[in-house]
Amino acid sequence: MSRSTEHTVKAFDGEIVELRGLISEMGGRAEEAISGAMRALTSHDLETAARVVQDDKRIDALEDQVDRLAVQVIALRAPMADDLREVVAALKIAGVVERIGDYAKNIAKRVPEIGSGRQIEAISILPAMARAASSMVHDVLDAFAARDWEAAVEVCERDREVDDFYNSIFRTLVTFMMENPQTISQAAHLLFVAKNLERIGDHATNVAEMVYFAARGTYMAERERGPDGVRS
Amino acid sequence: MSRSTEHTVKAFDGEIVELRGLISEMGGRAEEAISGAMRALTSHDLETAARVVQDDKRIDALEDQVDRLAVQVIALRAPMADDLREVVAALKIAGVVERIGDYAKNIAKRVPEIGSGRQIEAISILPAMARAASSMVHDVLDAFAARDWEAAVEVCERDREVDDFYNSIFRTLVTFMMENPQTISQAAHLLFVAKNLERIGDHATNVAEMVYFAARGTYMAERERGPDGVRS
Repeated sequence: MSRSTEHTVKAFDGEIVELRGLISEMGGRAEEAISGAMRALTSHDLETAARVVQDDKRIDALEDQVDRLAVQVIALRAPMADDLREVVAALKIAGVVERIGDYAKNIAKRVPEIGSGRQIEAISILPAMARAASSMVHDVLDAFAARDWEAAVEVCERDREVDDFYNSIFRTLVTFMMENPQTISQAAHLLFVAKNLERIGDHATNVAEMVYFAARGTYMAERERGPDGVRS
Repeated sequence: MSRSTEHTVKAFDGEIVELRGLISEMGGRAEEAISGAMRALTSHDLETAARVVQDDKRIDALEDQVDRLAVQVIALRAPMADDLREVVAALKIAGVVERIGDYAKNIAKRVPEIGSGRQIEAISILPAMARAASSMVHDVLDAFAARDWEAAVEVCERDREVDDFYNSIFRTLVTFMMENPQTISQAAHLLFVAKNLERIGDHATNVAEMVYFAARGTYMAERERGPDGVRS
């Protein structure tokens, strides 16, 4: 290997590490946003809700950084095959994680409308659903960092659990609304909260498919992804 | 200009035209999906609903084509400045249009759950809201094809109208649910239909921001985007 080639390879490796680091930071902030939004919701904490909304700007700024770096890497290093797939995956995964942050922000924005909502029983199931969705986000970004396609397949399988939560909460809320028409407005906001969490699970599944493609160069088979249990 | 440079420039121009053509085709299919889903909804036409769901696969396939072509153009032609921004915009816009298609598919999937729903008055306002959102998608993709940042700004301003529709439909549906608890399940699905249309308007706004950035190299100012009227 010539000196200059070696130099280029090292620079490229450094940039890939930097890309992974930025995405890992985005993921950490998205997880924090989900847990912050749920804490704000269950304890009707308007201050925490406002902070989650405010902090979303940092996730957006990180996405811009990923975009710029990924484009620079493609344009200057002209990576091939596996490397190119990984850089493009980083570009697309950053877009998905940014949207996961938006769903958390959306939950936080509903906190003032929902009020204490303690009387609505579904609210006590939402935190467990949020943990299930958030752990999918965590694990799929670990799978990206480790180029571990088997871990990515495993994350997809867990989307079923989040969908089951959603279907159960949907039915519980609709029943509650029928019996307590005066709470319909608050309960409708909780329906959207549940839907946002369900979408976070879907987005983690999308990232898993990108991790799989980046690592293997083929698309994840339907069989591996499991049946489409998404209520959508 | 040397012969080989000229050749490269021409090949690049051809690829940009191809990229724009693919995105325009995606946009046309997304618009069809929205109008098909709304037709299926208002006339309770399960066959049309199933076709919209099925046809979404073509939008996904077009996105894959855009991704591959855009990456190839960046890697082989190493475009700079304006050209690079346009190719990256194409890559990101394709992702957004794919999601717009998903929202239409999601509306179509709800048709069987909603039933005829004729008794729910909000259903008669939804088609006008869908037309407002769909025309934003149409016009912003025209703006991309023409690199017309002023048209992109104009599309952003229209998002306010879609948000107003959403807020009005939300209130109408909640009131209807309170007065007719037996329709809550159907009305809850209509809430999600309205939310999907509102999200389509938001996504058209996101595309407008990308068109603006691609054409001008700076971000659209808050002032130009208008106040954040998104109920989210």
